[in-house]
Amino acid sequence: MKTLTVQGKERSYPIYIGNGLLEKVPSFLKQHHIETDCKLMIVTDTHVAPLYAGKLRDALEQAGFQAGISVVEAGEKSKSLQMLEHLTGECLKFGLDRRSVILALGGGVVGDLAGFLAASYMRGIPFVQIPTTLLAHDSSVGGKVAVNHPMGKNYIGAFHQPLMVVFDVACLKTLPAREWRSGMAEVIKHGLIRDASFVEWLDEHRESLDARDHDAMMESVYRGCQIKADVVSQDERETGLRAILNYGHTIGHALEAVSGYQVYTHGEAISIGMNGAAQLSERLLGTNREVIRETGRILKSFGLPVVCTDSWPVASLIGIMKRDKKAQQGKYVFVLARDIGNVEIVRDVPEEEIKRVLQRLLPDREMKP
Amino acid sequence: MKTLTVQGKERSYPIYIGNGLLEKVPSFLKQHHIETDCKLMIVTDTHVAPLYAGKLRDALEQAGFQAGISVVEAGEKSKSLQMLEHLTGECLKFGLDRRSVILALGGGVVGDLAGFLAASYMRGIPFVQIPTTLLAHDSSVGGKVAVNHPMGKNYIGAFHQPLMVVFDVACLKTLPAREWRSGMAEVIKHGLIRDASFVEWLDEHRESLDARDHDAMMESVYRGCQIKADVVSQDERETGLRAILNYGHTIGHALEAVSGYQVYTHGEAISIGMNGAAQLSERLLGTNREVIRETGRILKSFGLPVVCTDSWPVASLIGIMKRDKKAQQGKYVFVLARDIGNVEIVRDVPEEEIKRVLQRLLPDREMKP
Repeated sequence: MKTLTVQGKERSYPIYIGNGLLEKVPSFLKQHHIETDCKLMIVTDTHVAPLYAGKLRDALEQAGFQAGISVVEAGEKSKSLQMLEHLTGECLKFGLDRRSVILALGGGVVGDLAGFLAASYMRGIPFVQIPTTLLAHDSSVGGKVAVNHPMGKNYIGAFHQPLMVVFDVACLKTLPAREWRSGMAEVIKHGLIRDASFVEWLDEHRESLDARDHDAMMESVYRGCQIKADVVSQDERETGLRAILNYGHTIGHALEAVSGYQVYTHGEAISIGMNGAAQLSERLLGTNREVIRETGRILKSFGLPVVCTDSWPVASLIGIMKRDKKAQQGKYVFVLARDIGNVEIVRDVPEEEIKRVLQRLLPDREMKP
Repeated sequence: MKTLTVQGKERSYPIYIGNGLLEKVPSFLKQHHIETDCKLMIVTDTHVAPLYAGKLRDALEQAGFQAGISVVEAGEKSKSLQMLEHLTGECLKFGLDRRSVILALGGGVVGDLAGFLAASYMRGIPFVQIPTTLLAHDSSVGGKVAVNHPMGKNYIGAFHQPLMVVFDVACLKTLPAREWRSGMAEVIKHGLIRDASFVEWLDEHRESLDARDHDAMMESVYRGCQIKADVVSQDERETGLRAILNYGHTIGHALEAVSGYQVYTHGEAISIGMNGAAQLSERLLGTNREVIRETGRILKSFGLPVVCTDSWPVASLIGIMKRDKKAQQGKYVFVLARDIGNVEIVRDVPEEEIKRVLQRLLPDREMKP
């Protein structure tokens, strides 16, 4: 087992990464002074519940804990205020009080939703992130929790740091291929923004990663989490540096929203977004074309898309970006690349440049009027 | 104008109390480095909007600010997640970003709702409390914000401290008589929990208060806020002392919930609750009967109820108290009185004692089987 630490302003918390850690959750809880008289609620989804929820609850009950299970429909649609109200009711019925703990067992959707439930339930109770997807190596670290608004993603949320993150890499073995690839997009992003040697390592270990070799999975999750933890420790509330984690996300979020969260996985959307951001970098920062080519190559080599196959109205994409949480006073903010492993935040990106890049990411551009 | 300061863990903020302060909001904003390029959203309700919203917006626009107005239906029903979603949409449409500021113009409902909107909008933006009711001298200080769940009050919320509180006592002149009395319940509560001399002062100035004499209003708001600010400064997150502010609230919240928030104002409910808590104190702490009599007398002298005229099922009231946010592991927690101006938190109050007191607060008890 490997352990990382995220330094928070008020307190620090550990990330445990290892094999078979689900069974160890009860002892981790006790190490964190959560005793068996504290009620627990496992929040999970319809994909994860049949695989791991019973196993986790059994381990907890054997250790003397009382744990309920709330299952939400798998998918982005569950990140809604309606679901928050439903889960709050479940917690009240199960008798959760201010000393109780929420356990978020699942991918990014479950982590974000259960995390905001914990942030808002009786004005905030502790929670534990137990990610079961590769993508969630990213979202489970850093305390950003939220639900969606019909007008866009993550508009209603909080900063609420987990008590700990327990990453059982054994769960990754059952991940569908598309989900695995989607998660690799965030792993690659961590290399692209901060660590060229990690990008090289990923490139060299692509085959073992595709085969989900245990050691390769451990190392990729560990190094991905390490970069995330390092950035978050320096800027918990996203007042500066932390925004670099949004590399590829401005275009990515817009693509997810315009397609109703039905067409692209989050990883696919940000993969296309990173390709777009790299192209913007060439225009706005004069970044070497080799960096743009290399960005596209590594993403494609892991089976990720770098352009859209469906066509979306540029005006809609631009409209969504204008309301992006990073936008300020209607100006577009992008994370752009200087080099592999080196990005920077650029404010006030001209709309014309964004439109030009979007045209290149969308199909049939020669057929457009 | 008088100024108080609330000491927060991360930062402190002022409470301004005075006459005609609505017009000064723009200059207060500028003193707090909110410049005219920050968009503002005034959240208010159908009672307050026609009286003060236009006036506030005019003052803001004259100072160069851009301010939208969102009006919600007056009343507790607006403290819902549905309304939060609606308001989030209003803010998005008006173009509020992370640097924007929410202005909560109204009573406790507006403050709690707009405060939680600010706490959760894009994971948190600043807000200003501009209370227009006497009751809100209490709720606007201390950063407790929330909406209700169908199963009970304030179950979904946050601790989100305002940038400042601007209390324009001129607004109190237009307050309906019942709202004024309801607010007096929280003013009296502040005396009862912490300051016997303030209770005496209130007793002596009842006539000037009933006449809403300016100086008497200033003094009662100032001293009420002072006690609240003092307690909150010592315990921002309600880990200990702060719970004394809930004097009368365990029974009070249960009465509000059981009656669907339609029968009692918040102040009326906690007035009955304080009478109930005083009676429990006699049984559990051996508090002098004179203290119980005096508590009832001062509440009644300000036109507040101390018993129910409608009958409610004791079992329902008990069931609601069991889910009270202060309850832990199914045990009932009450704030009880040692003396006028001196209360303490008592955990594990026996259910039988609570039932006995509830019987005395409800009508027709001799007719019960």
